[in-house]
Amino acid sequence: MEHDALQPDADLHALLADQTAITVGTAESCTGGHIGARIVNHAGSSAYFRGGIIAYANDVKEDVLGVDPGILETDGAVSERCAIAMATGARRVLDTTIAVSTTGIAGPSGGSDRKPVGIVYIGIATADITFAERHVFDGDRAAIIRAAADRAITLLADHARALRGPGDGTDNA
Amino acid sequence: MEHDALQPDADLHALLADQTAITVGTAESCTGGHIGARIVNHAGSSAYFRGGIIAYANDVKEDVLGVDPGILETDGAVSERCAIAMATGARRVLDTTIAVSTTGIAGPSGGSDRKPVGIVYIGIATADITFAERHVFDGDRAAIIRAAADRAITLLADHARALRGPGDGTDNA
Repeated sequence: MEHDALQPDADLHALLADQTAITVGTAESCTGGHIGARIVNHAGSSAYFRGGIIAYANDVKEDVLGVDPGILETDGAVSERCAIAMATGARRVLDTTIAVSTTGIAGPSGGSDRKPVGIVYIGIATADITFAERHVFDGDRAAIIRAAADRAITLLADHARALRGPGDGTDNA
Repeated sequence: MEHDALQPDADLHALLADQTAITVGTAESCTGGHIGARIVNHAGSSAYFRGGIIAYANDVKEDVLGVDPGILETDGAVSERCAIAMATGARRVLDTTIAVSTTGIAGPSGGSDRKPVGIVYIGIATADITFAERHVFDGDRAAIIRAAADRAITLLADHARALRGPGDGTDNA
Protein backbone atom coordinates (compact mmCIF):
# COMPACT_ATOMS: atom_id res chain seq x y z
CA MET A 1 0.00 0.00 0.00
CA GLU A 2 1.67 3.18 -1.18
CA HIS A 3 0.42 5.27 1.72
CA ASP A 4 2.68 3.38 4.10
CA ALA A 5 5.63 5.27 2.69
CA LEU A 6 4.09 8.69 3.37
CA GLN A 7 4.29 10.89 6.41
CA PRO A 8 0.90 10.53 8.14
CA ASP A 9 -0.14 14.09 7.29
CA ALA A 10 0.66 13.48 3.61
CA ASP A 11 -1.29 10.23 3.80
CA LEU A 12 -4.29 12.02 5.36
CA HIS A 13 -4.08 14.73 2.72
CA ALA A 14 -3.91 12.26 -0.17
CA LEU A 15 -6.94 10.53 1.27
CA LEU A 16 -9.20 13.54 1.83
CA ALA A 17 -8.10 16.46 -0.36
CA ASP A 18 -10.32 15.40 -3.26
CA GLN A 19 -13.56 15.28 -1.25
CA THR A 20 -15.53 17.29 1.28
CA ALA A 21 -17.81 14.68 2.85
CA ILE A 22 -15.36 13.65 5.55
CA THR A 23 -14.11 16.44 7.82
CA VAL A 24 -11.62 16.33 10.66
CA GLY A 25 -10.96 18.36 13.77
CA THR A 26 -8.59 18.30 16.71
CA ALA A 27 -8.49 18.78 20.48
CA GLU A 28 -4.84 19.23 21.39
CA SER A 29 -3.41 19.47 24.86
CA CYS A 30 0.22 18.28 24.98
CA THR A 31 0.71 18.68 21.22
CA GLY A 32 -0.46 22.29 21.50
CA GLY A 33 -1.22 22.89 17.82
CA HIS A 34 1.33 20.59 16.18
CA ILE A 35 -1.38 18.37 14.66
CA GLY A 36 -3.20 21.31 13.10
CA ALA A 37 0.08 22.82 11.95
CA ARG A 38 1.07 19.62 10.16
CA ILE A 39 -2.32 19.39 8.45
CA VAL A 40 -2.40 22.99 7.19
CA ASN A 41 1.11 22.70 5.77
CA HIS A 42 -0.68 20.99 2.87
CA ALA A 43 -2.28 23.40 0.42
CA GLY A 44 -5.93 22.47 0.00
CA SER A 45 -6.36 21.01 3.49
CA SER A 46 -9.40 23.25 3.95
CA ALA A 47 -11.29 20.60 1.95
CA TYR A 48 -11.37 18.47 5.09
CA PHE A 49 -9.80 20.32 8.05
CA ARG A 50 -12.32 22.48 9.88
CA GLY A 51 -10.16 23.43 12.82
CA GLY A 52 -9.20 22.54 16.34
CA ILE A 53 -9.28 23.44 19.99
CA ILE A 54 -5.90 23.80 21.66
CA ALA A 55 -6.94 23.00 25.22
CA TYR A 56 -3.73 23.48 27.15
CA ALA A 57 -5.37 24.66 30.39
CA ASN A 58 -7.89 22.43 32.12
CA ASP A 59 -10.42 25.30 32.13
CA VAL A 60 -10.35 25.26 28.34
CA LYS A 61 -10.93 21.49 28.33
CA GLU A 62 -14.03 22.10 30.49
CA ASP A 63 -15.35 25.36 29.10
CA VAL A 64 -14.74 24.92 25.38
CA LEU A 65 -14.71 21.13 24.93
CA GLY A 66 -17.24 20.35 27.66
CA VAL A 67 -15.05 17.85 29.51
CA ASP A 68 -16.80 16.89 32.74
CA PRO A 69 -14.95 18.44 35.71
CA GLY A 70 -15.51 15.13 37.50
CA ILE A 71 -13.22 13.39 35.00
CA LEU A 72 -10.47 15.92 35.67
CA GLU A 73 -10.91 15.47 39.43
CA THR A 74 -10.99 11.69 39.51
CA ASP A 75 -8.88 10.57 36.54
CA GLY A 76 -6.94 13.76 35.84
CA ALA A 77 -6.37 15.53 32.55
CA VAL A 78 -3.88 12.87 31.45
CA SER A 79 -6.27 9.95 31.26
CA GLU A 80 -8.21 7.76 28.88
CA ARG A 81 -11.54 9.26 29.91
CA CYS A 82 -10.29 12.82 29.40
CA ALA A 83 -8.90 11.98 25.95
CA ILE A 84 -12.21 10.45 24.92
CA ALA A 85 -14.18 13.41 26.31
CA MET A 86 -11.88 15.85 24.49
CA ALA A 87 -12.31 14.06 21.15
CA THR A 88 -16.06 13.80 21.62
CA GLY A 89 -16.26 17.46 22.57
CA ALA A 90 -14.15 18.56 19.62
CA ARG A 91 -16.28 16.56 17.20
CA ARG A 92 -19.41 18.25 18.55
CA VAL A 93 -18.03 21.80 18.84
CA LEU A 94 -16.30 21.71 15.44
CA ASP A 95 -19.05 19.66 13.76
CA THR A 96 -16.67 17.20 12.11
CA THR A 97 -16.90 13.59 10.96
CA ILE A 98 -13.83 12.58 12.96
CA ALA A 99 -11.98 14.27 15.82
CA VAL A 100 -8.71 13.35 17.46
CA SER A 101 -7.39 14.44 20.85
CA THR A 102 -4.08 14.40 22.71
CA THR A 103 -3.40 14.76 26.41
CA GLY A 104 -0.12 13.81 28.02
CA ILE A 105 3.11 14.82 29.68
CA ALA A 106 5.74 16.08 27.23
CA GLY A 107 8.20 16.87 30.02
CA PRO A 108 10.89 17.22 30.97
CA SER A 109 9.13 17.80 34.32
CA GLY A 110 5.65 16.82 35.51
CA GLY A 111 6.04 13.05 35.38
CA SER A 112 5.33 10.53 38.14
CA ASP A 113 5.53 6.75 38.56
CA ARG A 114 1.96 6.29 37.44
CA LYS A 115 2.13 8.94 34.73
CA PRO A 116 5.71 9.11 33.45
CA VAL A 117 7.09 11.73 31.11
CA GLY A 118 6.15 10.60 27.60
CA ILE A 119 2.71 9.29 28.51
CA VAL A 120 0.13 10.46 25.98
CA TYR A 121 -3.49 9.42 25.59
CA ILE A 122 -4.79 9.85 22.06
CA GLY A 123 -8.56 9.85 21.61
CA ILE A 124 -10.72 9.34 18.55
CA ALA A 125 -14.39 10.14 18.07
CA THR A 126 -16.55 9.34 15.06
CA ALA A 127 -20.33 8.87 14.84
CA ASP A 128 -19.90 5.21 15.78
CA ILE A 129 -16.62 4.87 17.66
CA THR A 130 -14.96 6.52 20.64
CA PHE A 131 -11.76 5.23 22.21
CA ALA A 132 -8.36 6.29 23.42
CA GLU A 133 -4.93 4.72 23.13
CA ARG A 134 -2.29 4.97 25.84
CA HIS A 135 1.30 5.48 24.71
CA VAL A 136 4.57 6.15 26.49
CA PHE A 137 6.85 7.79 23.95
CA ASP A 138 10.63 7.96 24.30
CA GLY A 139 12.90 10.92 23.84
CA ASP A 140 12.98 14.58 24.73
CA ARG A 141 10.06 17.01 24.73
CA ALA A 142 10.27 17.63 20.98
CA ALA A 143 10.41 13.91 20.19
CA ILE A 144 7.45 13.14 22.45
CA ILE A 145 5.34 15.88 20.88
CA ARG A 146 6.32 14.73 17.37
CA ALA A 147 5.52 11.08 18.12
CA ALA A 148 2.16 12.00 19.62
CA ALA A 149 1.24 14.15 16.61
CA ASP A 150 2.41 11.39 14.22
CA ARG A 151 0.23 8.78 15.92
CA ALA A 152 -2.77 11.13 16.16
CA ILE A 153 -2.61 11.92 12.45
CA THR A 154 -2.15 8.23 11.62
CA LEU A 155 -5.33 7.47 13.57
CA LEU A 156 -7.20 10.24 11.72
CA ALA A 157 -6.05 8.75 8.42
CA ASP A 158 -6.94 5.19 9.44
CA HIS A 159 -10.47 6.21 10.40
CA ALA A 160 -10.88 8.42 7.35
CA ARG A 161 -9.80 5.48 5.19
CA ALA A 162 -12.31 3.21 6.90
CA LEU A 163 -15.09 5.75 6.35
CA ARG A 164 -14.16 6.16 2.70
CA GLY A 165 -14.65 2.45 2.27
CA PRO A 166 -12.98 -0.24 0.17
CA GLY A 167 -11.78 2.19 -2.52
CA ASP A 168 -9.01 3.01 -0.02
CA GLY A 169 -9.44 6.71 -0.74
CA THR A 170 -6.58 6.87 -3.18
CA ASP A 171 -8.89 6.49 -6.19
CA ASN A 172 -10.80 9.59 -7.12
CA ALA A 173 -14.28 8.12 -6.98
CA MET B 1 17.95 44.67 24.63
CA GLU B 2 18.80 41.02 24.76
CA HIS B 3 15.35 39.88 23.65
CA ASP B 4 15.93 41.28 20.17
CA ALA B 5 18.31 38.41 19.52
CA LEU B 6 15.75 35.75 20.43
CA GLN B 7 13.18 34.00 18.31
CA PRO B 8 9.85 35.61 19.21
CA ASP B 9 8.57 32.46 20.95
CA ALA B 10 11.73 32.33 23.09
CA ASP B 11 11.28 36.03 23.83
CA LEU B 12 7.64 35.48 24.87
CA HIS B 13 8.67 32.54 27.02
CA ALA B 14 11.47 34.46 28.77
CA LEU B 15 8.98 37.21 29.48
CA LEU B 16 6.11 35.15 30.91
CA ALA B 17 7.39 31.78 32.17
CA ASP B 18 8.10 33.15 35.65
CA GLN B 19 4.60 34.52 36.26
CA THR B 20 0.96 33.50 35.93
CA ALA B 21 -0.83 36.88 35.94
CA ILE B 22 -0.60 37.42 32.19
CA THR B 23 -2.10 34.68 30.03
CA VAL B 24 -2.21 34.34 26.26
CA GLY B 25 -4.44 32.60 23.75
CA THR B 26 -4.73 32.28 19.99
CA ALA B 27 -7.28 32.25 17.19
CA GLU B 28 -5.51 30.80 14.17
CA SER B 29 -6.88 30.55 10.69
CA CYS B 30 -4.11 30.56 8.07
CA THR B 31 -1.41 29.58 10.58
CA GLY B 32 -3.54 26.57 11.59
CA GLY B 33 -1.83 25.80 14.90
CA HIS B 34 1.73 26.96 14.16
CA ILE B 35 1.55 29.72 16.81
CA GLY B 36 0.42 27.33 19.52
CA ALA B 37 2.95 24.74 18.41
CA ARG B 38 5.81 27.24 18.68
CA ILE B 39 4.67 28.30 22.17
CA VAL B 40 4.33 24.78 23.60
CA ASN B 41 7.77 23.78 22.31
CA HIS B 42 8.97 25.60 25.43
CA ALA B 43 8.71 23.53 28.62
CA GLY B 44 6.77 25.50 31.21
CA SER B 45 4.65 27.42 28.71
CA SER B 46 1.56 26.31 30.63
CA ALA B 47 2.39 29.16 33.04
CA TYR B 48 0.95 31.58 30.50
CA PHE B 49 -0.49 29.70 27.49
CA ARG B 50 -4.10 28.67 28.04
CA GLY B 51 -4.85 27.47 24.54
CA GLY B 52 -6.23 28.44 21.20
CA ILE B 53 -8.95 28.04 18.63
CA ILE B 54 -7.84 26.85 15.22
CA ALA B 55 -10.64 28.36 13.15
CA TYR B 56 -9.85 27.13 9.67
CA ALA B 57 -13.48 26.92 8.49
CA ASN B 58 -15.65 30.03 8.57
CA ASP B 59 -18.28 28.11 10.57
CA VAL B 60 -15.74 27.68 13.35
CA LYS B 61 -14.97 31.40 13.28
CA GLU B 62 -18.68 32.06 13.78
CA ASP B 63 -19.70 29.23 16.07
CA VAL B 64 -16.71 29.00 18.40
CA LEU B 65 -15.21 32.50 18.25
CA GLY B 66 -18.50 34.36 17.78
CA VAL B 67 -17.42 36.25 14.67
CA ASP B 68 -20.46 38.11 13.29
CA PRO B 69 -21.62 36.43 10.05
CA GLY B 70 -22.14 39.93 8.68
CA ILE B 71 -18.40 40.55 8.83
CA LEU B 72 -17.74 37.40 6.83
CA GLU B 73 -20.37 38.42 4.26
CA THR B 74 -19.30 42.02 3.80
CA ASP B 75 -15.55 42.05 4.48
CA GLY B 76 -14.76 38.36 4.13
CA ALA B 77 -12.75 36.11 6.42
CA VAL B 78 -9.48 37.70 5.28
CA SER B 79 -10.11 41.18 6.64
CA GLU B 80 -9.19 43.56 9.40
CA ARG B 81 -12.62 43.31 11.01
CA CYS B 82 -12.53 39.50 11.00
CA ALA B 83 -9.04 39.44 12.56
CA ILE B 84 -10.18 41.80 15.32
CA ALA B 85 -13.36 39.77 15.93
CA MET B 86 -11.34 36.55 16.07
CA ALA B 87 -8.89 37.96 18.62
CA THR B 88 -11.68 39.45 20.71
CA GLY B 89 -13.59 36.18 20.57
CA ALA B 90 -10.54 34.10 21.53
CA ARG B 91 -9.80 36.37 24.47
CA ARG B 92 -13.35 35.92 25.73
CA VAL B 93 -13.70 32.18 25.04
CA LEU B 94 -10.26 31.30 26.42
CA ASP B 95 -10.38 33.89 29.23
CA THR B 96 -6.90 35.27 28.59
CA THR B 97 -5.19 38.60 29.16
CA ILE B 98 -4.08 38.84 25.53
CA ALA B 99 -5.22 37.02 22.42
CA VAL B 100 -3.77 37.07 18.92
CA SER B 101 -5.42 36.04 15.66
CA THR B 102 -4.35 35.29 12.09
CA THR B 103 -6.44 35.17 8.94
CA GLY B 104 -4.94 35.24 5.48
CA ILE B 105 -4.11 33.47 2.25
CA ALA B 106 -1.10 31.18 2.50
CA GLY B 107 -1.48 30.01 -1.11
CA PRO B 108 -0.38 28.96 -3.54
CA SER B 109 -3.97 29.35 -4.82
CA GLY B 110 -6.83 31.51 -3.52
CA GLY B 111 -5.30 34.93 -4.15
CA SER B 112 -6.81 37.86 -6.05
CA ASP B 113 -5.76 41.39 -6.96
CA ARG B 114 -7.34 42.83 -3.83
CA LYS B 115 -6.28 39.94 -1.60
CA PRO B 116 -3.04 38.50 -2.98
CA VAL B 117 -1.37 35.32 -1.81
CA GLY B 118 0.64 36.27 1.27
CA ILE B 119 -1.92 38.68 2.70
CA VAL B 120 -2.39 38.07 6.41
CA TYR B 121 -4.30 40.12 8.95
CA ILE B 122 -3.01 39.70 12.50
CA GLY B 123 -5.30 40.83 15.30
CA ILE B 124 -4.61 41.61 18.94
CA ALA B 125 -7.07 41.93 21.80
CA THR B 126 -6.32 43.00 25.37
CA ALA B 127 -8.62 44.58 27.95
CA ASP B 128 -7.81 48.01 26.53
CA ILE B 129 -6.69 47.53 22.94
CA THR B 130 -8.02 45.82 19.83
CA PHE B 131 -6.46 46.25 16.41
CA ALA B 132 -5.24 44.33 13.40
CA GLU B 133 -2.20 44.69 11.18
CA ARG B 134 -2.27 43.98 7.44
CA HIS B 135 0.79 42.25 5.99
CA VAL B 136 1.67 40.82 2.60
CA PHE B 137 4.39 38.25 3.19
CA ASP B 138 6.69 36.95 0.47
CA GLY B 139 7.66 33.40 -0.32
CA ASP B 140 5.98 30.03 -0.59
CA ARG B 141 3.22 28.66 1.63
CA ALA B 142 5.62 27.55 4.38
CA ALA B 143 7.42 30.92 4.40
CA ILE B 144 4.13 32.85 4.58
CA ILE B 145 2.86 30.73 7.46
CA ARG B 146 6.18 31.07 9.29
CA ALA B 147 6.28 34.85 8.81
CA ALA B 148 2.70 35.22 10.01
CA ALA B 149 3.38 33.13 13.11
CA ASP B 150 6.60 35.06 13.79
CA ARG B 151 4.81 38.40 13.64
CA ALA B 152 1.86 37.15 15.72
CA ILE B 153 4.16 35.90 18.47
CA THR B 154 6.17 39.14 18.34
CA LEU B 155 2.95 41.09 18.89
CA LEU B 156 2.03 38.83 21.81
CA ALA B 157 5.44 39.47 23.34
CA ASP B 158 5.26 43.22 22.74
CA HIS B 159 1.90 43.48 24.46
CA ALA B 160 2.92 41.15 27.26
CA ARG B 161 6.00 43.33 27.81
CA ALA B 162 3.86 46.47 27.93
CA LEU B 163 1.52 44.86 30.47
CA ARG B 164 4.43 43.74 32.63
CA GLY B 165 5.54 47.35 32.81
CA PRO B 166 8.89 49.12 32.93
CA GLY B 167 10.72 46.12 34.44
CA ASP B 168 10.71 44.73 30.86
CA GLY B 169 9.72 41.32 32.15
CA THR B 170 13.23 39.96 32.08
CA ASP B 171 13.77 40.72 35.75
CA ASN B 172 12.09 38.33 38.13
CA ALA B 173 10.10 40.83 40.13
